[in-house]
Amino acid sequence: MSGWLRIIGLGPGAASLRTPEAEAALAEATDILGYGPYVARVAARTEQRVHPTDNREELDRARHALELAETGARVAVVSSGDPGVFAMAAAVFEAVEHGPAPWRDLDIQVLPGISAMFAAAARLGAPLGHDFCAISLSDNLKPWELVEKRLRLAAEAGFVLALYNPISRARPWQLGRAFALLREHLPGTVPVAFATAISRPEERMVLRPLAEANPALADMRTLVLVGSAATRMAGRFLYTPRSAASA
Amino acid sequence: MSGWLRIIGLGPGAASLRTPEAEAALAEATDILGYGPYVARVAARTEQRVHPTDNREELDRARHALELAETGARVAVVSSGDPGVFAMAAAVFEAVEHGPAPWRDLDIQVLPGISAMFAAAARLGAPLGHDFCAISLSDNLKPWELVEKRLRLAAEAGFVLALYNPISRARPWQLGRAFALLREHLPGTVPVAFATAISRPEERMVLRPLAEANPALADMRTLVLVGSAATRMAGRFLYTPRSAASA
Repeated sequence: MSGWLRIIGLGPGAASLRTPEAEAALAEATDILGYGPYVARVAARTEQRVHPTDNREELDRARHALELAETGARVAVVSSGDPGVFAMAAAVFEAVEHGPAPWRDLDIQVLPGISAMFAAAARLGAPLGHDFCAISLSDNLKPWELVEKRLRLAAEAGFVLALYNPISRARPWQLGRAFALLREHLPGTVPVAFATAISRPEERMVLRPLAEANPALADMRTLVLVGSAATRMAGRFLYTPRSAASA
Repeated sequence: MSGWLRIIGLGPGAASLRTPEAEAALAEATDILGYGPYVARVAARTEQRVHPTDNREELDRARHALELAETGARVAVVSSGDPGVFAMAAAVFEAVEHGPAPWRDLDIQVLPGISAMFAAAARLGAPLGHDFCAISLSDNLKPWELVEKRLRLAAEAGFVLALYNPISRARPWQLGRAFALLREHLPGTVPVAFATAISRPEERMVLRPLAEANPALADMRTLVLVGSAATRMAGRFLYTPRSAASA
């Protein structure tokens, strides 16, 4: 009985962007848990037990994974991108904090992956070449007023913004509200990138100036990057210069 | 003559954290350029030309890489972590923007890597599980007042902070000043992680409350993570809960 739990970042999609460390842990796992479409990316062997679940069941999935590891299973919880960025790692430690004491002593490791924002940035050029922030637009777990406050402060700070969870059927208006708010604080010429399913067959990248940024260009698989006032094109590449002139 | 330029993220150090995409590009390159210690991580074949250079010569190195690619070389510019995060990608596109017109048509791609902040976060648990920002503390390319402004706004926003380039021989006081400023805006109990050389043999991780965070715990290889008021321990793991209560 020497179970373990690995919270694994699969990267944005392509196997060529998955680390050997992640592959090795997946190969050794007895059980693979995760949101259905992510589990489907993993080529499970016939003797591995696969537990795909719904998007909204993160804490239940975390508890299930911890219970399995406690009973001696080698458990892989898979996330797209990096598991520490708006993904399963925080859910697992939340479950650990509020769960039975023995869970704290389990062999748990987080295995990092290429996050959506870096995969998107790499396709574009170097839009994250200067200071930046990452904000989840989902108001499932925090009040919308807090999202707005952070957007305002981030724009004032001159950060490039990576917006995760921009839109879903249950959250249809948040991205439009975010663009409207950012237009009050940033030039309308600031470039906005809609990066969807980067490195997967359905990959799509759309660039618009903030003044014309349309939420309909995003879906659940989209990472939205909003430049700073300094973000610009160099030929066909989008980048943010390393240097900044004034406060 | 079909030269290309790949700006490659080597990840934090261990080969097990390097993507197959990066390995494939390295294997096909005729020339490898980068800061000496990063080039040294790559097992160059004897027929490959290796061009290690000093830390401060990023723009010269970028121009050199573009010149080589223009003459038909297959050029790998290597960065630690992700090349788009305070690394070589922005320097290359800066050189492209201000360089000869043909450079804009070169075959240039950025290959993402595991950034230091995600490698560090994974070792700790999930400190980046909520909204966060990344700020370079170097005032070589921006005024220190701008760094201070961003630190203040980031603390006010409740972001977890990843501080890159925290300290060097030429920039000895900036990290101490940053801690002093953050103590004015955040509780002294906020956890600060000093993550040095993660995944390399000399790896070292030190945790301190902000009130006792000592800049001497950092060196040039250190990524400093400053939690938000919500960041906490779950057993031996550091994490930031996904939910936040109020603005």
